[in-house]
Amino acid sequence: MAVYLSDSEVIASMSQENSAGAAGGSQPAASASQTGYVTGADIGGTSLRLALADMDGRILDKWKVSTAGIRDPLVVVDLMHEGIEQLFQKNSLSRSLLRAVAAGAPGVTDVDAGVVIATSYLMGWRDVPFRSLLEDRLGVPAAVENDVNTAAIAESKIGVGRGVRDFVFLAVGTGVGAGLVLNGRLFQGMGWSAGEIGYLLVPGTSVEPVETGEPGALESIVGGEGIKAQWKHLWRKELTSLPEDLVATQIFDCAVEGDALAQMVLRKSAETLAYAIYNIAVLLNCPLFVLGGSVGMHPAFWELTKEILAQRDKRVQPALLRSTLGPDAQVQGAIHLALETAATRRL
Amino acid sequence: MAVYLSDSEVIASMSQENSAGAAGGSQPAASASQTGYVTGADIGGTSLRLALADMDGRILDKWKVSTAGIRDPLVVVDLMHEGIEQLFQKNSLSRSLLRAVAAGAPGVTDVDAGVVIATSYLMGWRDVPFRSLLEDRLGVPAAVENDVNTAAIAESKIGVGRGVRDFVFLAVGTGVGAGLVLNGRLFQGMGWSAGEIGYLLVPGTSVEPVETGEPGALESIVGGEGIKAQWKHLWRKELTSLPEDLVATQIFDCAVEGDALAQMVLRKSAETLAYAIYNIAVLLNCPLFVLGGSVGMHPAFWELTKEILAQRDKRVQPALLRSTLGPDAQVQGAIHLALETAATRRL
Repeated sequence: MAVYLSDSEVIASMSQENSAGAAGGSQPAASASQTGYVTGADIGGTSLRLALADMDGRILDKWKVSTAGIRDPLVVVDLMHEGIEQLFQKNSLSRSLLRAVAAGAPGVTDVDAGVVIATSYLMGWRDVPFRSLLEDRLGVPAAVENDVNTAAIAESKIGVGRGVRDFVFLAVGTGVGAGLVLNGRLFQGMGWSAGEIGYLLVPGTSVEPVETGEPGALESIVGGEGIKAQWKHLWRKELTSLPEDLVATQIFDCAVEGDALAQMVLRKSAETLAYAIYNIAVLLNCPLFVLGGSVGMHPAFWELTKEILAQRDKRVQPALLRSTLGPDAQVQGAIHLALETAATRRL
Repeated sequence: MAVYLSDSEVIASMSQENSAGAAGGSQPAASASQTGYVTGADIGGTSLRLALADMDGRILDKWKVSTAGIRDPLVVVDLMHEGIEQLFQKNSLSRSLLRAVAAGAPGVTDVDAGVVIATSYLMGWRDVPFRSLLEDRLGVPAAVENDVNTAAIAESKIGVGRGVRDFVFLAVGTGVGAGLVLNGRLFQGMGWSAGEIGYLLVPGTSVEPVETGEPGALESIVGGEGIKAQWKHLWRKELTSLPEDLVATQIFDCAVEGDALAQMVLRKSAETLAYAIYNIAVLLNCPLFVLGGSVGMHPAFWELTKEILAQRDKRVQPALLRSTLGPDAQVQGAIHLALETAATRRL
């Protein structure tokens, strides 16, 4: 069952950004004069985040709940329903003013059909018609999109990708994913799985054939879980005074503080990510990469990846920026989608 | 100076395809009822090929000349002029019926500006305003595009990529290049160098920083020159009865005939290409790859690459087809561009 987090657990940065709002955001179609509100959602394996916004995309309030252990899509829909009710009540707004909702889901998503095709083993969704479930429960038009893609939308509209025709948003958290913005639009691929870069092969990754459900070659070195596993694998009492159980960002912190083993793990991850970025930059002639996700946002990881990238090839020098939206990117992108949905979709 | 090839040296398959014409080709804009003709050109480091076509894209005749040793863009323009005059005369057509020309150039090309930004050392072009040069000399609207991209256009219009929204054309000849068709359109990248995949890094390629002018990491293993160099590098009298000097397709032929060293070189090249295709398929969720170029068309190379690709990952299984247009793809794509140019561009 869901464990409700106290308000204080809602990330501080969120409320800061609340007051700033979606500054300068070029939100779509729906006009400022329209009365109404939308809700954007970010469905994660550990938490569900909601944000209530006006028709200009300005965030009025946020809500968050743990999703640990939850697999049933109907329970997620119930939680979204509950969160939306609370957000409207708390802000003394009539729930009838909800115009649309949109959700970022942690898996391959058919946006046209509104179906989450597959998520990782954590949630285990297969062909979940999440848009219909939301519309049935909430009575308003809904949209669903891959969560890394919703973040890429936000970066494109109000983040560092704003106004850049082609760029790639890289989410490095537990795993690794990319959102591709090409010709100013999301490129999702014919099977909606473009950007699933956890499986890329670069020098230093395993070339073993991939079994379904296993982490990909790149992900095993660059993703949070992979970095943790690498650390465990290399850890010896003789090599470090640090504990065997550390998470990726702790390992990176220790690298900065001078631990040689942690530095080795950091370098391997940064080098592998730099190779992947280089490859994407070569293939797509892409000038900008935006790093997000809890691991991707780590300054040391970002700095070292940039440094390795800069040394590779004078002709291929994409900019590598950190997201300025941080953990809010997904929900911001979902708000944008919800506004678009309000303007274009009728039930 | 140019060495004119005899008619018999014009590849036999060309005349075969002449009679078939651009079968079922969905050529653009320009209407069948329009009187006039266009010329498509393929500018290569060893030859310049021209084709004369009617406004339905049907090829009436072809012309070819050696470009060995030619570096001056003005000489290439002169050769094109001469070839066009000959094609019109030979077919008893008034040269005033030429409506447009288009050329595929062996380098990074700014299509909007009509400028060839850079070619390989063979021709050494830098920022050549080739469209203007052609228009000044020929007096008709012209277009210029990267040659691998013109081939991708042809595959998309009349080849095996016909009707496929997203696919990648892979040209493996002396070097390696790709033409990306995404959302049914060429994707050239913000600096017009998308698809320059000779520089990709995959397991087994060098990770040494790239010096300008040197072949890329992937190219060194997968391209014709790279394969030749590999063979030379590995060659020992004790290891093979074959000569030290062989070209890529000969090495592949010898692999088929059972030479162990040749088989080793073939496997390394096929494996490396398979990794690159896998990466592109993962990133873009791309379902189709079309192999072209003299090396890419070799059946043994194609078969082994397919086999290695099939073993990698059950979920990522793009089709790998050989081009059916062969060495005609570039010129066919140029004809398509010329027709588009005739319909849209005025001098």
